[in-house]
Amino acid sequence: MSEPMARSPFSHTPGLSGAPAHRFPRPPLSRLGLSPGKKTRLKRLLYDHGPGGGTLLVLPIDQGLEHGPVDFFANPESLDPQYQYELAREGKFSAIALHIGLAEKYYHEFAGDVPLILKLNGKTGVPSDAQAFSPLTGTVEDAVRLGADAVGYTVYVGSPAQDRDFLQFTGVRQDAERLGMPVVVWAYPRGEAIAKKGGKESLYAVDYAARVALELGADVVKVNYPVASEKDKESPSPYNSLALDPNDAFRKVVESAGRALVLVSGGEKVEDADLLRKVRSSMDAGATGIIFGRNLWQRSKPEALRLTRELHAIFREYAQPPA
Amino acid sequence: MSEPMARSPFSHTPGLSGAPAHRFPRPPLSRLGLSPGKKTRLKRLLYDHGPGGGTLLVLPIDQGLEHGPVDFFANPESLDPQYQYELAREGKFSAIALHIGLAEKYYHEFAGDVPLILKLNGKTGVPSDAQAFSPLTGTVEDAVRLGADAVGYTVYVGSPAQDRDFLQFTGVRQDAERLGMPVVVWAYPRGEAIAKKGGKESLYAVDYAARVALELGADVVKVNYPVASEKDKESPSPYNSLALDPNDAFRKVVESAGRALVLVSGGEKVEDADLLRKVRSSMDAGATGIIFGRNLWQRSKPEALRLTRELHAIFREYAQPPA
Amino acid sequence: MSEPMARSPFSHTPGLSGAPAHRFPRPPLSRLGLSPGKKTRLKRLLYDHGPGGGTLLVLPIDQGLEHGPVDFFANPESLDPQYQYELAREGKFSAIALHIGLAEKYYHEFAGDVPLILKLNGKTGVPSDAQAFSPLTGTVEDAVRLGADAVGYTVYVGSPAQDRDFLQFTGVRQDAERLGMPVVVWAYPRGEAIAKKGGKESLYAVDYAARVALELGADVVKVNYPVASEKDKESPSPYNSLALDPNDAFRKVVESAGRALVLVSGGEKVEDADLLRKVRSSMDAGATGIIFGRNLWQRSKPEALRLTRELHAIFREYAQPPA
Amino acid sequence: MSEPMARSPFSHTPGLSGAPAHRFPRPPLSRLGLSPGKKTRLKRLLYDHGPGGGTLLVLPIDQGLEHGPVDFFANPESLDPQYQYELAREGKFSAIALHIGLAEKYYHEFAGDVPLILKLNGKTGVPSDAQAFSPLTGTVEDAVRLGADAVGYTVYVGSPAQDRDFLQFTGVRQDAERLGMPVVVWAYPRGEAIAKKGGKESLYAVDYAARVALELGADVVKVNYPVASEKDKESPSPYNSLALDPNDAFRKVVESAGRALVLVSGGEKVEDADLLRKVRSSMDAGATGIIFGRNLWQRSKPEALRLTRELHAIFREYAQPPA
Amino acid sequence: MSEPMARSPFSHTPGLSGAPAHRFPRPPLSRLGLSPGKKTRLKRLLYDHGPGGGTLLVLPIDQGLEHGPVDFFANPESLDPQYQYELAREGKFSAIALHIGLAEKYYHEFAGDVPLILKLNGKTGVPSDAQAFSPLTGTVEDAVRLGADAVGYTVYVGSPAQDRDFLQFTGVRQDAERLGMPVVVWAYPRGEAIAKKGGKESLYAVDYAARVALELGADVVKVNYPVASEKDKESPSPYNSLALDPNDAFRKVVESAGRALVLVSGGEKVEDADLLRKVRSSMDAGATGIIFGRNLWQRSKPEALRLTRELHAIFREYAQPPA
Repeated sequence: MSEPMARSPFSHTPGLSGAPAHRFPRPPLSRLGLSPGKKTRLKRLLYDHGPGGGTLLVLPIDQGLEHGPVDFFANPESLDPQYQYELAREGKFSAIALHIGLAEKYYHEFAGDVPLILKLNGKTGVPSDAQAFSPLTGTVEDAVRLGADAVGYTVYVGSPAQDRDFLQFTGVRQDAERLGMPVVVWAYPRGEAIAKKGGKESLYAVDYAARVALELGADVVKVNYPVASEKDKESPSPYNSLALDPNDAFRKVVESAGRALVLVSGGEKVEDADLLRKVRSSMDAGATGIIFGRNLWQRSKPEALRLTRELHAIFREYAQPPA
Repeated sequence: MSEPMARSPFSHTPGLSGAPAHRFPRPPLSRLGLSPGKKTRLKRLLYDHGPGGGTLLVLPIDQGLEHGPVDFFANPESLDPQYQYELAREGKFSAIALHIGLAEKYYHEFAGDVPLILKLNGKTGVPSDAQAFSPLTGTVEDAVRLGADAVGYTVYVGSPAQDRDFLQFTGVRQDAERLGMPVVVWAYPRGEAIAKKGGKESLYAVDYAARVALELGADVVKVNYPVASEKDKESPSPYNSLALDPNDAFRKVVESAGRALVLVSGGEKVEDADLLRKVRSSMDAGATGIIFGRNLWQRSKPEALRLTRELHAIFREYAQPPA
Repeated sequence: MSEPMARSPFSHTPGLSGAPAHRFPRPPLSRLGLSPGKKTRLKRLLYDHGPGGGTLLVLPIDQGLEHGPVDFFANPESLDPQYQYELAREGKFSAIALHIGLAEKYYHEFAGDVPLILKLNGKTGVPSDAQAFSPLTGTVEDAVRLGADAVGYTVYVGSPAQDRDFLQFTGVRQDAERLGMPVVVWAYPRGEAIAKKGGKESLYAVDYAARVALELGADVVKVNYPVASEKDKESPSPYNSLALDPNDAFRKVVESAGRALVLVSGGEKVEDADLLRKVRSSMDAGATGIIFGRNLWQRSKPEALRLTRELHAIFREYAQPPA
Repeated sequence: MSEPMARSPFSHTPGLSGAPAHRFPRPPLSRLGLSPGKKTRLKRLLYDHGPGGGTLLVLPIDQGLEHGPVDFFANPESLDPQYQYELAREGKFSAIALHIGLAEKYYHEFAGDVPLILKLNGKTGVPSDAQAFSPLTGTVEDAVRLGADAVGYTVYVGSPAQDRDFLQFTGVRQDAERLGMPVVVWAYPRGEAIAKKGGKESLYAVDYAARVALELGADVVKVNYPVASEKDKESPSPYNSLALDPNDAFRKVVESAGRALVLVSGGEKVEDADLLRKVRSSMDAGATGIIFGRNLWQRSKPEALRLTRELHAIFREYAQPPA
Repeated sequence: MSEPMARSPFSHTPGLSGAPAHRFPRPPLSRLGLSPGKKTRLKRLLYDHGPGGGTLLVLPIDQGLEHGPVDFFANPESLDPQYQYELAREGKFSAIALHIGLAEKYYHEFAGDVPLILKLNGKTGVPSDAQAFSPLTGTVEDAVRLGADAVGYTVYVGSPAQDRDFLQFTGVRQDAERLGMPVVVWAYPRGEAIAKKGGKESLYAVDYAARVALELGADVVKVNYPVASEKDKESPSPYNSLALDPNDAFRKVVESAGRALVLVSGGEKVEDADLLRKVRSSMDAGATGIIFGRNLWQRSKPEALRLTRELHAIFREYAQPPA
């Protein structure tokens, strides 16, 4: 007989009425149904590296594949992957997330210092996103060989290529189960049908994507922060008339993700104050952490490290003992 | 030399003439040609859990994937999969049916209390259904590992992607045969050609889908209750002029399913009286049970449990000894 | 050094000149290049069951999948697969041919009494036939497990999906070779290009399909009886000006099938006299037997058995000793 | 250190200036880089059967699949594959080339007398050639089991389906390497792009196809004799202005094939004198032999054997000792 | 703790200001994260053959497949692959790069003298490049069997077929990792989307392609020299306004390739002075070497060897000790 987890249905919480945000707890590790291998590795990320206390501060560097070198002009040092590795080590990140090429060529010099999340699929930003699908660039066995503590996989929820995507993911999930490797799902709404129902940043789309990740077996899900807009009116009812404030909208997404831990995506570089507000809001809503790339490595290293220290300080406030 | 099973060709039964419904017996377990493993598991669902007596009362919670979190607004508690698990346990369901993510993250707390039907394929409701196909999200081996007593698989009968679907199903069926795992087929008519021949709720379509499930090797088939409409006139002869009453139409479907046990789908939430009438009609026609989701978990728990008790009471009337 | 088989090139036979039909012999079993396993099983069908004497009388019941339950209205009893099984047993058929679901659920009660031809691929009649392709519903290993004596496979000759079809068949043929299982090919012309060259019933199309089955490795080939029509003028030369009488046209097809034994398809239900005439014409031309479904099980059992006895009587006239 | 092979760059040879043809030597077996298994089998074909002396006289009978029975009307006896087998035996051919069905059903009576080249892929002539691709009908393991001395594979160079074709061929080539089985490539230019660049019989197309076969790993390549036409002007430079005489054009193709031995295709039936002239021209140019089907088996056996004797006589003039 | 590699962010280097080019060092072998097998083989190419000193001088001969025999008219001797092999041996190249057919038929006479890079995928130039994709023609195991020291693979960055390409490459990369075989990626931008963003020779496209190769796990990347043009204005910002001089543009590409060693492609034959200037510029920018085909073997052997000697002389200036 199990004790029910603290539940906070989105429509009954103070947050939804505009009142000061409640801090929603994160699901305890012991209730996630993890195999010993997954639990060992995930606990290492949540408690032994980075800010600890059950939080995740992840530095991604897959933009060179996804967007091209164009993202590195803002800070030329960032073109060399060693920059991100050093930032991850000096900034004491929970993990660095990247593709096989950057892992094989650079990780050997940081192995043991910075945990690795090996991103297993990706694509370039060159062809159109109409049939968005990210083919495998690596495997769970590559991740095991390299000493990684998790793998990452992008699912394009709603894409016409969704069926191939689910099948490919199922293969990854099974390998990960067999080898005790936690799976982080980048849950991205995409495609024409999404565009017609409010767009990829709408609460409808982000909320659905979070649930899909849970249903498919993600251990951790990376989501974008939903953005309210006029296009929400095209979302299915009742999304088209919810009009939640940003905090409540994000809390809704966290609840849809259920026992998949939530990482918030950073997206394009924004002002410090906005960034930190987003972090607090996310953590209040029950997120486990953040995965910020351009907002960090598009800065000079001193600047990036200064901001990272602020993030650590915030994260310490949200520490939760392992259970 | 075998004794013929009681047969009731649809056109000779009292039911077809509008007379009070006859109660058609269900095919006995001993005549279904089951391997020892399949028989062990199926008997467990039919007699050792739920209402027993050879019936099935299944609680599905795959709507978060198929429709998105939109279905949970009617009862915010239902967003948390723990709600459905608790309902299944407290309401003594024969089994809960869901995808791998909800099984891996939540089932460990209910293992041994609630039997599991692991749904093996699914899709989102985002892209168009024109090429409807549900890719694998799990495998029969996942089901064995998790202690499931059956697997579920959706076949979209008539979809242009039908060939990929049949091939994928054949793989699942073979794994299930090898591992002694009963297969429940969600038999759904879909696609343009179905739309032109009366639509997916027509007797033509539902009847064909039931037979396809039998031919492909389903042990149990989930069908929708056929709905008569003006569009039936576009169905192939003689469906376009049958004009059966609902009871007889459903009995026809049960006969087409042959020795595949029939589960009736609930669909959208309806009035209690309508729901219970549908249940009796289905059981009279020889159905083995029901698989109702939204009609149950879109209610508060006390309400859902009250209705579940009524269902148990009805099912007891239809108990049939194992044979 | 081998002795040449009696050859009767179609253009030199009496039949072609309208004279009374000659009885062409069937290729002897010893010359078909069969492995021991294939020979064991095929001899069992040809000599130990059914009419024997090297003939085949096969009862197919795959119409529930291919056409839907619509075919069972003519004789409501036929909706229950047990009807066809009983007919096959009581009518002493050489074999019953059906898909995995009907084999797994019903065959256990007839095992040892009625030989089984497991049909390995199929499709519904719902979507258009433009890209006709029948995916696998079973495997040769399923057939071995169930005690079948042959497998059946539909090839859609001329379909745009022909390449996938040939590849899939090649896999089946190899499994069958490895496991000593005879292969019966349903050789059906289909697709736009066939339609433009005389249609699927033209001698051109049926003749080509028979040869394709031989070239691909069929042990037995099921063909439709070619039907002369105005459309023959669109067939490639010299088919567009052959104007053979039906007997000679069918003899031509048998010769194209070479050492693949020929089964004649029944098609839709016709008058008794027409049916029996077709049977005699086919056997005269060197066919090994018939595969009639609707013409038999769309009748009441007494009627079907009466006709079956007549078929047995005819077949006895064509007995050929094993060699 | 190796001694260079006699090279004769096409633009420097006497032949190109219209002078009497030089006899170009064939590449010696010892320089082809063959594994022991390939060398054993290929030497058997080149020296122990057929005309010998390092030449190949191959009888193909795959037209029943590729064109349909239509090709057999010219000589009704040819409809029975036994005819071609007998012709190959009595005419002492180097090998007979055909598909799995004709091998399994007929070869057992000729095994040990006539070497076998098992053709591994093919298609019908029914659907359009726009996406020409020949799926596998057999495998290298089938060939080994049947005692074949080589396998045949058709590559459609330039077809839009070229990528699938190359992949499929690569699998065949690897199996052949593993099992020591020589690979004969039917190198056929096809598709819209070929049609726009001079057509499938142009020197440009045939020359390119020969080189592709060499690059992909053919041991022997079957090519069509290039035919000059007005359409050559559409070929890429300098093909559009070469205006080589037929002998020189064919020599060019042989050179492009490099160390892949060249077989010349017969194509449709032509006059004897033309046929023999083509044979001499081909052998002068360094071809290893011919693969003539319709030109032989569309004749009565006495006629075909007479012509075959003439071919043997010619081939004896081109004997080359093994080295 | 590792010492940072000398970094030279492109926007801060003297080269970018038009000042005389700095010589950028190449990444030392010890920092590339190579497995022992990869390091053994790559060191052999970099130091034991060819110009040595950590440079690569590669002779490719895959044009017969990619372009057809048309490329050999300029120097008829070059039609015979033995010509390129001899050139590679006499000119002391680091390696020769070619497909399986040229390796199996010719390499045995040069084995031990000339290192081999087995090109694993390719296509013809016949069909349109709109869906550019190069299927496998060989495997890493073929390369091991033949004694090769590296494998080559073409990735078409930006092609609509990019997903299949990445998946195929991932399989190759894994085999190469398992067998210790260095991977050289031909990184070619292709497809409609590339054409709309500046074209395949634009800095944007070449730069992106180099990064993709690094991210996917190339050990060596072959790139084209970017060419500035009016079309650069259609490239994404800031590429559309960079206006780098050729040296700086190429340096940018080398930096994007990170720890993947860079080979410069030769392309069509150009004037000697231009060629040597391009070589020096590339080596100054940190390239590891060149891969020139037509610029060498479209010359007579004395001419080609003379130029090769000049290349050796230049390369000696750029020698770097192993580390």
